[in-house]
Amino acid sequence: MSDGEFGPLSVPRRMLLGPGPTNVHPRVLRAMSTPITGYLDSAYFEILEEISEMLQIIYQTRQTTMVVAASGSGGMEAGLNSLIERGDKVIMCSYGHFCDRMIEMAGRLGAEVVSVRSEWGRAMDPALLADAISANPDVKLVTAIHAETSAGVLQPLEELSRLTHEAGALFLVDMVTSLAGAEVRFDDWEIDYAYSGPQKCLAGPPGLSPVAVSDTALDYVRNRATKPSSWYLDIDLISRYWGPEHVHHHTSPVSMMFGLREALAMALEEGVDNRIKRHAHTAAGLRAGLNALGLNLPVPAAERLDQLTVIEVPAGIDDNAVRQQILNEYAIEIGRGLGEFKGNKWRIGLMGESCQPQNVLAVLAAFERVLPLHGFEVAAGAGVAAASIELGKHEIPVP
Amino acid sequence: MSDGEFGPLSVPRRMLLGPGPTNVHPRVLRAMSTPITGYLDSAYFEILEEISEMLQIIYQTRQTTMVVAASGSGGMEAGLNSLIERGDKVIMCSYGHFCDRMIEMAGRLGAEVVSVRSEWGRAMDPALLADAISANPDVKLVTAIHAETSAGVLQPLEELSRLTHEAGALFLVDMVTSLAGAEVRFDDWEIDYAYSGPQKCLAGPPGLSPVAVSDTALDYVRNRATKPSSWYLDIDLISRYWGPEHVHHHTSPVSMMFGLREALAMALEEGVDNRIKRHAHTAAGLRAGLNALGLNLPVPAAERLDQLTVIEVPAGIDDNAVRQQILNEYAIEIGRGLGEFKGNKWRIGLMGESCQPQNVLAVLAAFERVLPLHGFEVAAGAGVAAASIELGKHEIPVP
Repeated sequence: MSDGEFGPLSVPRRMLLGPGPTNVHPRVLRAMSTPITGYLDSAYFEILEEISEMLQIIYQTRQTTMVVAASGSGGMEAGLNSLIERGDKVIMCSYGHFCDRMIEMAGRLGAEVVSVRSEWGRAMDPALLADAISANPDVKLVTAIHAETSAGVLQPLEELSRLTHEAGALFLVDMVTSLAGAEVRFDDWEIDYAYSGPQKCLAGPPGLSPVAVSDTALDYVRNRATKPSSWYLDIDLISRYWGPEHVHHHTSPVSMMFGLREALAMALEEGVDNRIKRHAHTAAGLRAGLNALGLNLPVPAAERLDQLTVIEVPAGIDDNAVRQQILNEYAIEIGRGLGEFKGNKWRIGLMGESCQPQNVLAVLAAFERVLPLHGFEVAAGAGVAAASIELGKHEIPVP
Repeated sequence: MSDGEFGPLSVPRRMLLGPGPTNVHPRVLRAMSTPITGYLDSAYFEILEEISEMLQIIYQTRQTTMVVAASGSGGMEAGLNSLIERGDKVIMCSYGHFCDRMIEMAGRLGAEVVSVRSEWGRAMDPALLADAISANPDVKLVTAIHAETSAGVLQPLEELSRLTHEAGALFLVDMVTSLAGAEVRFDDWEIDYAYSGPQKCLAGPPGLSPVAVSDTALDYVRNRATKPSSWYLDIDLISRYWGPEHVHHHTSPVSMMFGLREALAMALEEGVDNRIKRHAHTAAGLRAGLNALGLNLPVPAAERLDQLTVIEVPAGIDDNAVRQQILNEYAIEIGRGLGEFKGNKWRIGLMGESCQPQNVLAVLAAFERVLPLHGFEVAAGAGVAAASIELGKHEIPVP
């Protein structure tokens, strides 16, 4: 190997309007370039405590918050790994790709999985869970996803939680795409375990999973009959490192924690409620523009996410060719469909740092330019015009 | 929550001379502040391919290399999770704290563990493994640690590998502290799975685990009877994301990969052999100074690590009080003992970016100043003088 054959890092510019990661604010990027401390240094523990306090505010909880040193799927697995023992019966609400991922994980962990399937692109009717619980009164754990990123749907949680606790089970919820982009009330909704990712509405870098754990769930994992099969993703061990004893577990990803800490501080400076409103107003602008272009948004208005908008790929249009042209010519990334939505849906994320009015105008202008080249006629300028009227109705200060 | 109560990130300066993480080069820190791409972007795949190629050079392998999105312990668990099925017999060589961690993980994964214990602070005699294999001819996997960070010992691997393959088993090795700081020959030594961390001799940030996997091991995990219990740490799934198909798995930690990529490029610019020599010469300087201060280095000279030096805490001296004073007054972090060495050993790491002659002088000067205050008399200036003579014997260019 000759010296320097690889040269310096070269990364193209991207406007990230897919399902995540989103763009990252320069202040968060700068925080990651801070010279590091050790992970057993009391100065570092103070930063972890700040992160934990900030997460309590954002999750709206007085219970335990901490960060799993893995991406959002690692937070998903940490919860399932810690709350499932082999042979446990688990009812898993399923209405999208990431619900299927949870089912795959639970099966590997030896759970007896009862999946409650409902239509992709619609919120699930809680009556389906009630039926499943009636048929499986020995259920130990119920799982759901608050904002299904593959399907673009917001799932109300209060009734699911009530049914779960009536049955004496624990309630585990995916909040990867909802946290800081939609109302989240961990304590009021009596959730037992929730996980998220920094790379969505928190406007941080991908690679960590901030979680919240109820006292009941923590007590369960500390007293279960068998140890969780994963040591790295054991919520008990992670909580003992984050807790006042700071028991040595694995090496903490220091630079990423610096970035997450700064992203959380920025969310609180903006105000979580303001950030949620920014997501709503910006998404309204996008939807107005897409409607004006004659594109179909299949999720019913009352069930839609603001963070992520699902678009029907028009008949006869090549999903991939359009996305690639928008990426190659305008450096804008939009998302493809997954699972049932592969090839027939696009997904536009407006989350965190990417949730800005000028990004709405840019992606609509790109659609106006590219769609006719692929055979879908649109009135030039109609999308941008409709969006700017809608966006103009609100002041949307972007930090 | 009032705005800005948390204020900006504040991190104290540290000279990191513990067991890791070490300091990170400014070029690597800068790389982590590069605006990100999506993790399914072809530009990002090119960066992953570069990382993979660079790791092949550093691991000295033509087989599969990739990065587990978790810290070194995550790389450890990914290997065990992927190569152990419930009920498999695993022989685990044990001569330090991290060997015990491997045993804990394998037990949780349902392995029938045969632990071969030998003295902490000494390399293990391969005859012990030969005996264990004779008694357990149905062994499926043998594990060892190349550079035991808790014990400061370099374990020769060739004979262990030969015995393992004669028995028809796979050979899994921890190279967290050895990679880029000691000779590593993955293919020649016929290792089946090795994992490392960027936060040691690679001079990168903590939070990832670069791994190498033999064709045999990859074939095994792709054809095993049951799926690994962890989905997140499944080497088959990770390899399919890193491979040419780039199959969607979890969200990749983009910023950390940028940092790792730059750290690997810097290691190759320096030359891995030069970096290994730098570790040897710098450690020789430290040892000369510690000897001159009358401190005891318990690991026999032929078995010592260069990356990490174990020091006997002198009788009657408070381990923690000395470390805290060196940290508080001189901002130098040195390591405590773990397990059997808790309270009775210090550990000084000189790895990667922290492996510099001026750091040797600084830590020796701090010892000269602090030890007498705790009742251990030393001749003022003796350590620094002896070290500078030893360091002066070699030119040690630091990138």
